[in-house]
Amino acid sequence: MTDRSLLLIPGPTLVPESVLQAMAQHPIGHRSGEFSTLMGEVTAGLQWLHQTTGDVLILTASGTGAMEAGIINFLSPGDRVLCGCNGKFGERWTELCQAFQLQVETITAPWGQPLNPNDFATKLTADRDKTIKAVIITHSETSTGVINDLEAINRHVKAHGQALIIVDAVTSLGATSVPVDDWGLDVVASGSQKGYMIPPGLGFVAVSERAWQASKTAKLPKFYFDLGSYRKDGAKNTTPFTPPVNLFFALRQSLQLMQKEGLPQIFTRHERSAGMVQAAVSAWNLPLLCPVESASPAVTAVAPTTIAAEEVRSLLKKQFGIAVAGGQDQLKGKIFRIGHLGFAGEREMLTVIAALESVLHQLGHPLTLGSGVGAAIRVLEATP
Amino acid sequence: MTDRSLLLIPGPTLVPESVLQAMAQHPIGHRSGEFSTLMGEVTAGLQWLHQTTGDVLILTASGTGAMEAGIINFLSPGDRVLCGCNGKFGERWTELCQAFQLQVETITAPWGQPLNPNDFATKLTADRDKTIKAVIITHSETSTGVINDLEAINRHVKAHGQALIIVDAVTSLGATSVPVDDWGLDVVASGSQKGYMIPPGLGFVAVSERAWQASKTAKLPKFYFDLGSYRKDGAKNTTPFTPPVNLFFALRQSLQLMQKEGLPQIFTRHERSAGMVQAAVSAWNLPLLCPVESASPAVTAVAPTTIAAEEVRSLLKKQFGIAVAGGQDQLKGKIFRIGHLGFAGEREMLTVIAALESVLHQLGHPLTLGSGVGAAIRVLEATP
Repeated sequence: MTDRSLLLIPGPTLVPESVLQAMAQHPIGHRSGEFSTLMGEVTAGLQWLHQTTGDVLILTASGTGAMEAGIINFLSPGDRVLCGCNGKFGERWTELCQAFQLQVETITAPWGQPLNPNDFATKLTADRDKTIKAVIITHSETSTGVINDLEAINRHVKAHGQALIIVDAVTSLGATSVPVDDWGLDVVASGSQKGYMIPPGLGFVAVSERAWQASKTAKLPKFYFDLGSYRKDGAKNTTPFTPPVNLFFALRQSLQLMQKEGLPQIFTRHERSAGMVQAAVSAWNLPLLCPVESASPAVTAVAPTTIAAEEVRSLLKKQFGIAVAGGQDQLKGKIFRIGHLGFAGEREMLTVIAALESVLHQLGHPLTLGSGVGAAIRVLEATP
Repeated sequence: MTDRSLLLIPGPTLVPESVLQAMAQHPIGHRSGEFSTLMGEVTAGLQWLHQTTGDVLILTASGTGAMEAGIINFLSPGDRVLCGCNGKFGERWTELCQAFQLQVETITAPWGQPLNPNDFATKLTADRDKTIKAVIITHSETSTGVINDLEAINRHVKAHGQALIIVDAVTSLGATSVPVDDWGLDVVASGSQKGYMIPPGLGFVAVSERAWQASKTAKLPKFYFDLGSYRKDGAKNTTPFTPPVNLFFALRQSLQLMQKEGLPQIFTRHERSAGMVQAAVSAWNLPLLCPVESASPAVTAVAPTTIAAEEVRSLLKKQFGIAVAGGQDQLKGKIFRIGHLGFAGEREMLTVIAALESVLHQLGHPLTLGSGVGAAIRVLEATP
């Protein structure tokens, strides 16, 4: 990167200096006592973050690899699954399920709208023969900035009594509460370059006892992603295959920073960041892509109509060195997305809002200079 | 790691300071122009290292993930494959093939002995109906320090005319010549924490045109490891899923170091390191696990009989802060393994040999003090 870059995309996210320094240590052997100690510490931290006493397994993979592992270990070809689909990642999990010959039924909402929990209730209630084996949900849909109502959808899954709930928490974990044990989430997958505040390269999968039971009869082929071997070796604080030890160093440090801050404080900070951006966008009379009540605390998608989204991104990058994300697939060129998950906080929000205000003004979007920053400051001062 | 550790195991290997520093930069967005430039540079470097003009794909995975991708993309359930098996990694690929319902026939040699190319010739020649779809070989068997005669085995595969040759080059690539195009190797898998001189977390798969042809009819299910999507996106210098950008920074730097040194020089350095260790071990009257003519340039396995291998490792670690590897599975407690691949060179070899000499002497192994170091220096001075 250039020296003045500020990365505010929804992943990879900003990494604290102490985490970068921890990562830059010389590697250690992964079959050493030192590594076992490291893995034990990291695993305890992951359980804390997932609010679970169950297994949280660590894979050398991106978030997609973690989701693949979270699906193929618990299902068999032909199994009927419901897949929530209201953005790029929901579509990806649908394709993944199809690639593994699952019988997938999608429950859709337009990109930018949340999934309707009642749509799940209808299917699940009608399934008296209990043929639905799993419900797959993207909690925070990174492509649109929508957070789906996982708690409500999960209540319907629990009422069904048989289906597993499999969650893509890639951009929600560490940004908002994902109480794995309290909600009884069966499989929760995530990736390191998001709320974890470390670079990409690690995937995580939390697995419930119920899911382990299901794994006993699951017949999809697997080897590298066979979670049973990660569980078996994890119990001895080791891994079946060579782990990326430097990312473990980074993770230990970032988990320590997170534990020092505290879970409620982390979640409040993310809400505050989202609120600051939403207030500024509203003050500028720019539309959000999604209803504010369904806005993710991890990423805000703005859908400008008076000016081109790509020009906003381009000028923001060129003049201020700030990187925000564009739209993907059908939203390409139509939105820009400000990531505010992980290490980002009040300072970065004021920075990007002030810079955006200048960029929007230069591009001719009608606004009162200072209005966005002022609105954001009011949110900042009003929240704990 | 502690400040005085010296890591001489067969992976993770030593990482140069400039590579660690490159890795410690702040992440960049993986959908940025900067990343595309980085990926283009890294891909060109990988083609140079693989001596190929064909595809070398980059996965977020360990070497095992790369091998899985290298197998499942080109085969279908029930396909007949021959798998060389003379150590832990050969056994692993056999298990992997079985997990994916391939019809696997092993060609074995005792752990510590090389595979016999004639055993492959017999099977391949007898296969007049061309039912053998692939031959899977571990080039350098990390668990035993044996290098298998890939060139000879591959000649028999080429004479067969139909079977693909799929190679685990995890500890051979970057330590010895693996001329992918000249030999017509179809699939070559490797991992970053070995000859590449960077930490673990990246897997690589070189793929021939013939292998791509085979992939068109291959029916094993895949998504995260679907190499077709890596090829398609790779042509645009991007990746289907979030790549570990910091490891890409590291890889760019290490490839630059390697290109500056030159391939012949790198291979000579590895031969020299192996030769120095072999000479010292011989001077101490300690047995190598494998015949010296089949000894890998990446790792030397020593099988002491007068003293316990684990005591050697333990004292070497405790007194000198040098980590060497132990034996795995059936070789546990019976051998110690000195890694000399990647960044290690003459200085590290003299260091570990001198320290070992002291350790062996302290443990009561009969030797003439100075004999090992002297023998190593003679090798060093005799080789270019």
